[in-house]
Amino acid sequence: MSLPEKVRLVEVGPRDGLQNEAQPISVADKVRLVDDLTAAGLAYIEVGSFVSPKWVPQMAGSAEVFASIDQRPGVTYAALAPNLRGFEDAAAAGVKEVAVFAAASEAFSQRNINCSISQSLSRFEPIIEAARAQGVRVRGYVSCVLGCPYEGPVRAEQVLPVARALHQMGCYEVSLGDTIGTGTAGDVRRLFEVIAAHVPRAQLAGHFHDTYGQALANVYASLLEGISTFDSSVAGLGGCPYAKGATGNVATEDVVYLLDGLGIETGIDLERLIEAGQRISTVLGRANGSRVARARQAR
Amino acid sequence: MSLPEKVRLVEVGPRDGLQNEAQPISVADKVRLVDDLTAAGLAYIEVGSFVSPKWVPQMAGSAEVFASIDQRPGVTYAALAPNLRGFEDAAAAGVKEVAVFAAASEAFSQRNINCSISQSLSRFEPIIEAARAQGVRVRGYVSCVLGCPYEGPVRAEQVLPVARALHQMGCYEVSLGDTIGTGTAGDVRRLFEVIAAHVPRAQLAGHFHDTYGQALANVYASLLEGISTFDSSVAGLGGCPYAKGATGNVATEDVVYLLDGLGIETGIDLERLIEAGQRISTVLGRANGSRVARARQAR
Repeated sequence: MSLPEKVRLVEVGPRDGLQNEAQPISVADKVRLVDDLTAAGLAYIEVGSFVSPKWVPQMAGSAEVFASIDQRPGVTYAALAPNLRGFEDAAAAGVKEVAVFAAASEAFSQRNINCSISQSLSRFEPIIEAARAQGVRVRGYVSCVLGCPYEGPVRAEQVLPVARALHQMGCYEVSLGDTIGTGTAGDVRRLFEVIAAHVPRAQLAGHFHDTYGQALANVYASLLEGISTFDSSVAGLGGCPYAKGATGNVATEDVVYLLDGLGIETGIDLERLIEAGQRISTVLGRANGSRVARARQAR
Repeated sequence: MSLPEKVRLVEVGPRDGLQNEAQPISVADKVRLVDDLTAAGLAYIEVGSFVSPKWVPQMAGSAEVFASIDQRPGVTYAALAPNLRGFEDAAAAGVKEVAVFAAASEAFSQRNINCSISQSLSRFEPIIEAARAQGVRVRGYVSCVLGCPYEGPVRAEQVLPVARALHQMGCYEVSLGDTIGTGTAGDVRRLFEVIAAHVPRAQLAGHFHDTYGQALANVYASLLEGISTFDSSVAGLGGCPYAKGATGNVATEDVVYLLDGLGIETGIDLERLIEAGQRISTVLGRANGSRVARARQAR
């Protein structure tokens, strides 16, 4: 039961978060958010997505955002690249790290990215090849690792081939996402036990949603399983597209509060992070999804 | 890292919860809430408090509530008895289990119950003696076990003498409460390690507040420490009196969801519990504080 000394947080608010917010936001506000997060000490920020604005209007202007943000040395500014065209646009914008997105459930893959799981993996091959040629790192996401909005509970054995394929294809890290937040701590333990037999723990990340309030318990269970990278979203940006009005991505502030309490180093300044989250919540006209932020404001 | 097979939940919503709600509620609505909780399978319900209505108007009518609820065999219906007068009123109302309430912080004891910690313990002596004579069981609460709204962080060594005194005086169980919800999983581990060296784990309970979103991670950390009794409040009733607008008591629904996921038996029917919580939330005109309940409604 020893905990890691350091944890690396992957901030997904500007991409995964804003993509799922109803309220559109200007390039200037996105730039401000990314700069605020850099100033708060985040070392990894997923800034945008290079995808047709016809499909995802919230991600329009990602190249402009990349050109305008204050990119500090040592900080990774990443983008989602769902296809080769997206990758080329990202590379042209100077992006040094991209992410690809697969699912552990066939139904989710079909409905979310319009192809089967194996088709999605084939589609990533040329992206990963092109990325390797240009010195761009690729991170892989697997969604629905504990449950699927269409298929129900998902077993670790279903996740394994997808996570393993992404790792073998060259993703330096595979993030396992509980997209609908239905998983509990025992499921998380079992998931990492099964996957870590084939992909090293140091190359796995946990991506938890707080829809059922389980995210921090799941982070804690993951830490006890030797996982030391987690995705999170400032102010809990993003909500849950599969349960309107419910919570989605775990709030970065709440994860940092837990890690600070455990004496685990993150390099993040919680107070500045709370300010960044409050600012973007105000811009969006939404309640702050971080309970730590709400408790601090209520004092 | 083995988990208990069964967990006993102490439902504090009708007392600790309603006492801290701004909206007054009728005796009939309290009775309905307790009966709903009984029907959902709760085996322990803290029904009310025998205290002057001048001090705590929300708890007026507790004797009437006790007289009207459907008391099922095998279910404990308990009351808070802050002093001997309160105990006598409770006993006259046929109450078979009472609770006394101490604090781990001097400042909180003074401001919350108007006396020092040692004065509060002395005050419990005649209550516990009278209870023993009448065959009434006594449960002890210690509040502010990880933090105090006036003094800040609280160390396990400050909690130990209070928990130990309650145990030695004859409380069959001591509930350790993180009243302001600032504690994290590592603090919880350390707290139970220190206290369990002097009070058996089977006689300890965890009482967590979700103000900083940490409650379920703290429950999970407690389970791993061998704790198998937890206090919780249906629909998260109660809020947080020390941070207006923030969350207080962890919602029973959210704890049951975690325990169900871990395969730990509670005897509680989650769907009926969610209905009970939604009904009282509607009566109070407040948002449901359970994220599980909100996620279910949003589907």
